Amino acid sequence: MTRIKMIIEYDGSNYHGFQRQDNAHSIQAEIEQQICKLTGEAITICSAGRTDAGVHARGQVIAFNTAATIPPAKWTPALNTFLPADIRVLSSNKVDNNFHPQIHAVSKRYAYYIFRQKTGAVFYRQYAYCNREPLETTPMSQACELIKGRHNFKAFCASGSSARTFERTVMDCTIKESGPFLRLDIEADGFLYNMVRIIMGTLLEVGRQRISAEEVAQIIHSRDRVQAGSTAPAQGLYLLSVSY
Amino acid sequence: MTRIKMIIEYDGSNYHGFQRQDNAHSIQAEIEQQICKLTGEAITICSAGRTDAGVHARGQVIAFNTAATIPPAKWTPALNTFLPADIRVLSSNKVDNNFHPQIHAVSKRYAYYIFRQKTGAVFYRQYAYCNREPLETTPMSQACELIKGRHNFKAFCASGSSARTFERTVMDCTIKESGPFLRLDIEADGFLYNMVRIIMGTLLEVGRQRISAEEVAQIIHSRDRVQAGSTAPAQGLYLLSVSY
Repeated sequence: MTRIKMIIEYDGSNYHGFQRQDNAHSIQAEIEQQICKLTGEAITICSAGRTDAGVHARGQVIAFNTAATIPPAKWTPALNTFLPADIRVLSSNKVDNNFHPQIHAVSKRYAYYIFRQKTGAVFYRQYAYCNREPLETTPMSQACELIKGRHNFKAFCASGSSARTFERTVMDCTIKESGPFLRLDIEADGFLYNMVRIIMGTLLEVGRQRISAEEVAQIIHSRDRVQAGSTAPAQGLYLLSVSY
Repeated sequence: MTRIKMIIEYDGSNYHGFQRQDNAHSIQAEIEQQICKLTGEAITICSAGRTDAGVHARGQVIAFNTAATIPPAKWTPALNTFLPADIRVLSSNKVDNNFHPQIHAVSKRYAYYIFRQKTGAVFYRQYAYCNREPLETTPMSQACELIKGRHNFKAFCASGSSARTFERTVMDCTIKESGPFLRLDIEADGFLYNMVRIIMGTLLEVGRQRISAEEVAQIIHSRDRVQAGSTAPAQGLYLLSVSY
């Protein structure tokens, strides 16, 4: 039995999220089905995190056990011949039998893209939040500084979360203009359910000058989801990478 | 009766081209159907050019007659509320009753995008030709210079074309690196059927060093489609703008 770790990228537009579920097309089910075609095995894969419907990944990490004798690096081209064009394996290697992509993750990095131009939105409607409201980026950057560090992020956690603790450490939280996009980069030792999208929704309120940067510190302190902004749309969010 | 000219953009991925046809979803039918919902009129629109299945537009031009009393500029927001998210009206204005977007066009401009990176191809599979072969751009640029000017472009015209003349003037033909893309910009007083995609396919052969830049002059002279390269895939092509 060999344990394989893979880094994968996917366009989440046509899937109901990563996690396998009844009566809905998921990234997990698609990959498991194609592994079955490749090796004949009925395998359950685990991942570094479950992305929601419409959320994309440039560096999702998955792992699974296999009895197949395919050399670890050869899994990449082999599985790519079976996978649809919106899911690609970027690399594959052998790992310790106890490796778990979520439990052993030291940090995860996400990006959120807002498309700001008048023209071209048809091409980004599934790949960014298309929003042309005036946004003040200076207070947004100030708010990002307040989000950095170790905090209780309960105010930025969607209801229905199974999280037992809400303390997380945000190592990076940066807003920058990038061509026609405004881009948030955020890295943390872990993320609560919808945390990046709620942080983005709150930063948008700061950009619109409906709340001040300083009020973001109060929102964190409140531990009250109602105080934070709304959840930004799924299609702007990308899981960039996972560190171990 | 008012004649309205519109500049529109669309993501061609989910359509069988611009032109209305039986049993297939087209840009033209979608727009005509939404105009009918807006004004109750059964209108036939005409366009600057028929884009093929999967081809995109950032500045397609359409025109139609209407008895509706909607002010010309208000057609933009009005029709956008009916159109699907992959077709957008960018502007609308009143034009002379005899205006025809194809016949009166002085030149058209297209771009063709090749995505060159290893990672990220899942996001561009419908918006560029994803190709990572080594390509020599210097001879490709030399070949572009030979394509510029007035020539008989029969070698770059797909069979089945209804064109009666093959002489066209190419005013601009430029290859450049643009981030992760290699991009062809081409402007001409008119284009033959599949001309940009066959020129791109031929430039790819030059980039692969299978034919020299100088041989492109011979291919033009041959007036023989078989001498040119294959037709590059539809998803890399964008109709950028039309000049009048």
